Amino acid sequence: MAAPIEFYFDFSSPYAYLAAQRIDEIGERHGREVAWKPFLLGVVFKTTRSEPLLGIPMKGDYARVDLPRAARLMGVSFTLPSPFPFMSVAAGRAFYWLADRDPVRAKAFAKAVFQASFGEGRDMSGAAAVLETAEGLGVESGQLETALRDPAVKDRLRVEVEEAVAKGVCGSPFVFVDGEPFWGHDRLDHVDRWLETGGW
Amino acid sequence: MAAPIEFYFDFSSPYAYLAAQRIDEIGERHGREVAWKPFLLGVVFKTTRSEPLLGIPMKGDYARVDLPRAARLMGVSFTLPSPFPFMSVAAGRAFYWLADRDPVRAKAFAKAVFQASFGEGRDMSGAAAVLETAEGLGVESGQLETALRDPAVKDRLRVEVEEAVAKGVCGSPFVFVDGEPFWGHDRLDHVDRWLETGGW
Repeated sequence: MAAPIEFYFDFSSPYAYLAAQRIDEIGERHGREVAWKPFLLGVVFKTTRSEPLLGIPMKGDYARVDLPRAARLMGVSFTLPSPFPFMSVAAGRAFYWLADRDPVRAKAFAKAVFQASFGEGRDMSGAAAVLETAEGLGVESGQLETALRDPAVKDRLRVEVEEAVAKGVCGSPFVFVDGEPFWGHDRLDHVDRWLETGGW
Repeated sequence: MAAPIEFYFDFSSPYAYLAAQRIDEIGERHGREVAWKPFLLGVVFKTTRSEPLLGIPMKGDYARVDLPRAARLMGVSFTLPSPFPFMSVAAGRAFYWLADRDPVRAKAFAKAVFQASFGEGRDMSGAAAVLETAEGLGVESGQLETALRDPAVKDRLRVEVEEAVAKGVCGSPFVFVDGEPFWGHDRLDHVDRWLETGGW
C-alpha cells in the first residue's frame, strides 16, 4: 500500500477550503489515502515574512475576485466568514484529538468546519462553534470540551505545526505526494498528474 | 474586433517566462490579439509589502522545485539566470520604444529576452545585453542605445508601471480579459475558459 497523500491546510484558509473539495476524490482515483493535517499559517508567516492575503493591498482586492470565481467554476458555494481571518486553533486541536480516536470522524469534522465557515460564512473561531459542529457528528461534547483545555492536546497541534514548518509547508493548502511538494489549490492538477505518472 | 488581451509581466519574473510560452497561442485560439505589457514588479512590491519570491525563506525553496517542474511539464527549458533577480528596466524601456515603432518586432524582442534569460540563463540586466538581443532582430543598435538614455523613453516605462499599479496588477504575470483580472501562470486555464465562455 502506497503512503498516504499529505494534505496540509489551515482551517481559516479559503484556498484550502477549495482544495478540500477535491483532494479526497483525487486520492481515490489513484488508490491513495489522504491524511488531512491542519496547521497554523500564522506560525509559518513568521518565517516567510507574510501576512493574511485578504489584508494585503492589491492582492486582497484580487483575491476577492479570484476566490468566488474559482468556487463558481468548481460549482461550490463560497462565502467569506466574519470575522476573517479567524483563529483556527480550537478547530485544529479538536481535529487531532478526534484523529487519534476516530480518523474517519475527524475528516468528517474537518469538512463540516470548512462547510460552516466558507460554505455558510459562520464564525468557527470559538470553542463553542467547534463543539457544536463536533456534536452534530455524534462526538460527546463534554469530552471534547475538556480535551480542548488539555495541555497534551495543545501540544499535539503545536508539534504538528512545527513538523509542517520543518517540512517546508510554506502556505495553505500544501500537498505532499511521496515527499514531492505542491503548494496551492491551483497545483491539484499537478498532484493528480504526479499520481498518474509517478513524476516527470 | 474584441479588445486585446493584456499580458502584464516583469522580464525578471520566472513565472511570467512560463506564461509567455502560452499566452499568444491562447489568444489565437479565441481570435484575440495579446498586448504584451512589461512592468516593474519592484514598484508593485512597495504597495504589496512583498519581496522577490526566490529570496523568501521556505517559499524560495519551494519555487526552486516548482518552477523547473512546471517547465518540464510544459516541455520548455528553464534555467535561473545569474544574477537573479535582475534589473529589468533596460529591457522594459527598449520594449516600449520598439512597441511604439514596430509592435511585431517588440513582441519578438520580448520573447528573445525571456529565451536568453530563463531559457539559457544569460544575464539580461544590462543595456549591452538588451542592445545585442535587439540587434539580432534587425534593430539598429545605435538608435536604441540613444533611446535608452532618453528621458521620454524612461517616462514611457514609468507611466506604464504607474498604470499597471492603478489597475491592480499585484504580481507577475497578470492578465486582463475585458477587464477581468487573472494573476499567475497557473490561471491561464481560467483565462482560456473565460475567453471560451465569456465568463461564469
